[in-house]
Amino acid sequence: MIDIQSQSDTRAIALLKVGVKGLEYPIRVLDKMKKIQYTTAHVDLYANVLPCFKGTHMSRFIEVFHQYREDISMHRFLDMLRQVRSSLEAESAFGQVSFPFFIEKAAPVSGLMGMMSYQCHYQGRVDSSGRQFTVTISVPLTTVCPCSKAISSRGAHNQRGMVTVNLELGPFFWIEDIIALVEDCASSPVYALLKREDEKYVTEQAYDNPKFVEDLVRDVYTSIRALQQFPSFSVEAETYESIHNHNAFAYTEYHRG
Amino acid sequence: MIDIQSQSDTRAIALLKVGVKGLEYPIRVLDKMKKIQYTTAHVDLYANVLPCFKGTHMSRFIEVFHQYREDISMHRFLDMLRQVRSSLEAESAFGQVSFPFFIEKAAPVSGLMGMMSYQCHYQGRVDSSGRQFTVTISVPLTTVCPCSKAISSRGAHNQRGMVTVNLELGPFFWIEDIIALVEDCASSPVYALLKREDEKYVTEQAYDNPKFVEDLVRDVYTSIRALQQFPSFSVEAETYESIHNHNAFAYTEYHRG
Amino acid sequence: MIDIQSQSDTRAIALLKVGVKGLEYPIRVLDKMKKIQYTTAHVDLYANVLPCFKGTHMSRFIEVFHQYREDISMHRFLDMLRQVRSSLEAESAFGQVSFPFFIEKAAPVSGLMGMMSYQCHYQGRVDSSGRQFTVTISVPLTTVCPCSKAISSRGAHNQRGMVTVNLELGPFFWIEDIIALVEDCASSPVYALLKREDEKYVTEQAYDNPKFVEDLVRDVYTSIRALQQFPSFSVEAETYESIHNHNAFAYTEYHRG
Amino acid sequence: MIDIQSQSDTRAIALLKVGVKGLEYPIRVLDKMKKIQYTTAHVDLYANVLPCFKGTHMSRFIEVFHQYREDISMHRFLDMLRQVRSSLEAESAFGQVSFPFFIEKAAPVSGLMGMMSYQCHYQGRVDSSGRQFTVTISVPLTTVCPCSKAISSRGAHNQRGMVTVNLELGPFFWIEDIIALVEDCASSPVYALLKREDEKYVTEQAYDNPKFVEDLVRDVYTSIRALQQFPSFSVEAETYESIHNHNAFAYTEYHRG
Repeated sequence: MIDIQSQSDTRAIALLKVGVKGLEYPIRVLDKMKKIQYTTAHVDLYANVLPCFKGTHMSRFIEVFHQYREDISMHRFLDMLRQVRSSLEAESAFGQVSFPFFIEKAAPVSGLMGMMSYQCHYQGRVDSSGRQFTVTISVPLTTVCPCSKAISSRGAHNQRGMVTVNLELGPFFWIEDIIALVEDCASSPVYALLKREDEKYVTEQAYDNPKFVEDLVRDVYTSIRALQQFPSFSVEAETYESIHNHNAFAYTEYHRG
Repeated sequence: MIDIQSQSDTRAIALLKVGVKGLEYPIRVLDKMKKIQYTTAHVDLYANVLPCFKGTHMSRFIEVFHQYREDISMHRFLDMLRQVRSSLEAESAFGQVSFPFFIEKAAPVSGLMGMMSYQCHYQGRVDSSGRQFTVTISVPLTTVCPCSKAISSRGAHNQRGMVTVNLELGPFFWIEDIIALVEDCASSPVYALLKREDEKYVTEQAYDNPKFVEDLVRDVYTSIRALQQFPSFSVEAETYESIHNHNAFAYTEYHRG
Repeated sequence: MIDIQSQSDTRAIALLKVGVKGLEYPIRVLDKMKKIQYTTAHVDLYANVLPCFKGTHMSRFIEVFHQYREDISMHRFLDMLRQVRSSLEAESAFGQVSFPFFIEKAAPVSGLMGMMSYQCHYQGRVDSSGRQFTVTISVPLTTVCPCSKAISSRGAHNQRGMVTVNLELGPFFWIEDIIALVEDCASSPVYALLKREDEKYVTEQAYDNPKFVEDLVRDVYTSIRALQQFPSFSVEAETYESIHNHNAFAYTEYHRG
Repeated sequence: MIDIQSQSDTRAIALLKVGVKGLEYPIRVLDKMKKIQYTTAHVDLYANVLPCFKGTHMSRFIEVFHQYREDISMHRFLDMLRQVRSSLEAESAFGQVSFPFFIEKAAPVSGLMGMMSYQCHYQGRVDSSGRQFTVTISVPLTTVCPCSKAISSRGAHNQRGMVTVNLELGPFFWIEDIIALVEDCASSPVYALLKREDEKYVTEQAYDNPKFVEDLVRDVYTSIRALQQFPSFSVEAETYESIHNHNAFAYTEYHRG
């Protein structure tokens, strides 16, 4: 049967990324408490295409990923990309996988357990010169506005927000540890389950600890930098302002000097 | 050229709705202050298909809508549906159109102007027995939690929320009036533009006026019922809880007895 | 500590649904081949509130769901709703859970395995008079347009589409069986992994078997009705037309007479 | 009234972007045929914050944008960013605006008119060294798979896809001209309104002109490069494969040497 994709191409244009987008798969990832965690993922996989070839063989991405699906820890994900690269005889292979990561979390006073979900994202590339790998983690949290608190005779506007950190992989780390670090920088963490005694605690803790998006980004930045573990990283904060129908946003980056 | 859709069908199954979904069009609607307002819409159009026909003629929905696009006030929308019904020789025609509706709103103390956007939705049906028409309007707003305020020694959690009302059309009404009615039931309205003096005002007003989702729904329900203008309506409230990563929700309905 | 929600309310307005929306949880469901399947879900839980009460106790929804999370088969889901109803001393409790359901599927010629994902949705209600429960299953598939095939001298436009069935629960059934039934009504099923011999097979099978959205709905309707297993059901089809930037849609319902 | 945002900060961390995200505004843009076009936009606006300041003044972004809202042509957008920069006394100001752009398009044989919508996106930055500005335009279209056509004895799978070009601004250009250029590279353009004679034409034209995502990207790249008008650009293609439940994707970039 004719193989159109392998025919030669005369347009002399290299393609940086060609592949499949939007696969949905059940996956397993590492879990600090329970060893493994079952979750579900959206997956994109690409490889480069040299100017001389007409196209790539899309089915091979699926064949390779299907073999690795059972366990998508960070190092396995890079092994999978190496396999994509070799299967497609490509110079570089790229992949992304996005999944909710679950942690059972105790309410701060009652100690009752609820489940929290944190969106995570691996992004990797392998080529002849090595590999790049970043992990993105989004952490929902509460912020109380310092300005509103300072100028108002009572109350202060507050809201749910999201801090997203993007980390270049250095030594092994646990997703759970980064989530805890970010939550420590919030006016308060958020919880799935809060009884009245917890709600009182969370309300007062947040009010005593007001933060702008700018503060969140700087405090998370400072805490991650202090770990001396990531060659580069970025931090962004977005808060769903309770007094507006738009969001506040702040962003910065670190690159080891 | 053969007309497959008009061929007869032997499966003896009536189809309640057949049509086109996800058209995007620029439209014009009525505006209380400026007479007309330009906005953009997502449009779905359907008609029934009798058991004896194989299918409908999808292109006619577009032909009809294209003629009416310039002005989609509520009564024009119903005229358009009548035209769909007749063009397709159908018993019933259905349509939905969703669009952001914009109101320039002054900040409560400084009086500075910003633009607010409110998602609106028309839903209509015409058949031999007459017409049905409902308008859905979503109004973002702030809520302060009465429980958090009552049990905490300082502060109170608050958040952005959304009240959505669905109104069966009786006599003519202005979208702007319903939005104002809903905003009056909130702990505070939200604004695009607030200077510090406005932020102090909004923070204190909201703190003095705490509301559960249950309160929002009951207060909006009471206000709309008092208008004695709508044969039936529903009210729902959803608040993006600042202390959780999920939302609180309440819903009820009114039907003239 | 004061319990604001249990205070009496004088507005005399019953609330039909009050609760929590947008919980994310890892869950387990039944799997015909593997006995159980791990997946992830979005969950909404509501109860009614009588006119005399100010509000509901939102934390109890989470407490109950957290106990049931490990196994959300259909009957367990209804047990969970009964527990919500009793925990909140409500007349009626409502719940929805949406999750991707995964099936490993063999390519039609090569037999190579890929993973397919099908969005599923349980929706239930329990009250003093009994229970209602429906299951919604969305099945992606291919359609070739019969009109385009009939009028064109070569080729025929085709596209991905989605058939969504909503089934009122009667006797036990497997999600896998409904998915197979729907795929049998398509021009062709879709697959995650297809080699060239599979692509030839799928292309020709689809071309030989053209279907309008109207045909899909009627054929799925006929097949489900023949099972004589569901007291009522609906079928809808939406196809992402390859020659338009909007979709074609058809819908109908069955109610046991 | 105290100005918290202007207080000094001791953490010594520069913030690259701070601002507002998710504003919705009605806007006006240039239109080749009608001179101006009314549409609706999502807007994000940011400025940098120096290490010595605690925060930015979010309300000023809205104040500036509100003045410019009536006309957001490309050069006005850059003027608006210059005004943001000066109003906030920032080194750099950033902005994004996304909007549907509408073109009335005639069917290829019948000549009947329908409305097409193309998502557009401006992204700009101004600082002391000058400005950067890119325009992103997404064009829906049809692709027929060359492999499927070559290996199958009849038919060929085809689907809706989207080509997205990102253009660095050089001399003035019309959005309409880029859309026409991209549509010329497709197996066929898509249309809102097609009668049977049009559907025959489009089906046959597409079948005679099969394209992989790789071909789309290379052909659009070649056509844009030939304009010699843009210092740099990128092209991506994503097709909603009719035989899969995932998409095919290709991407490349040009940088003037």
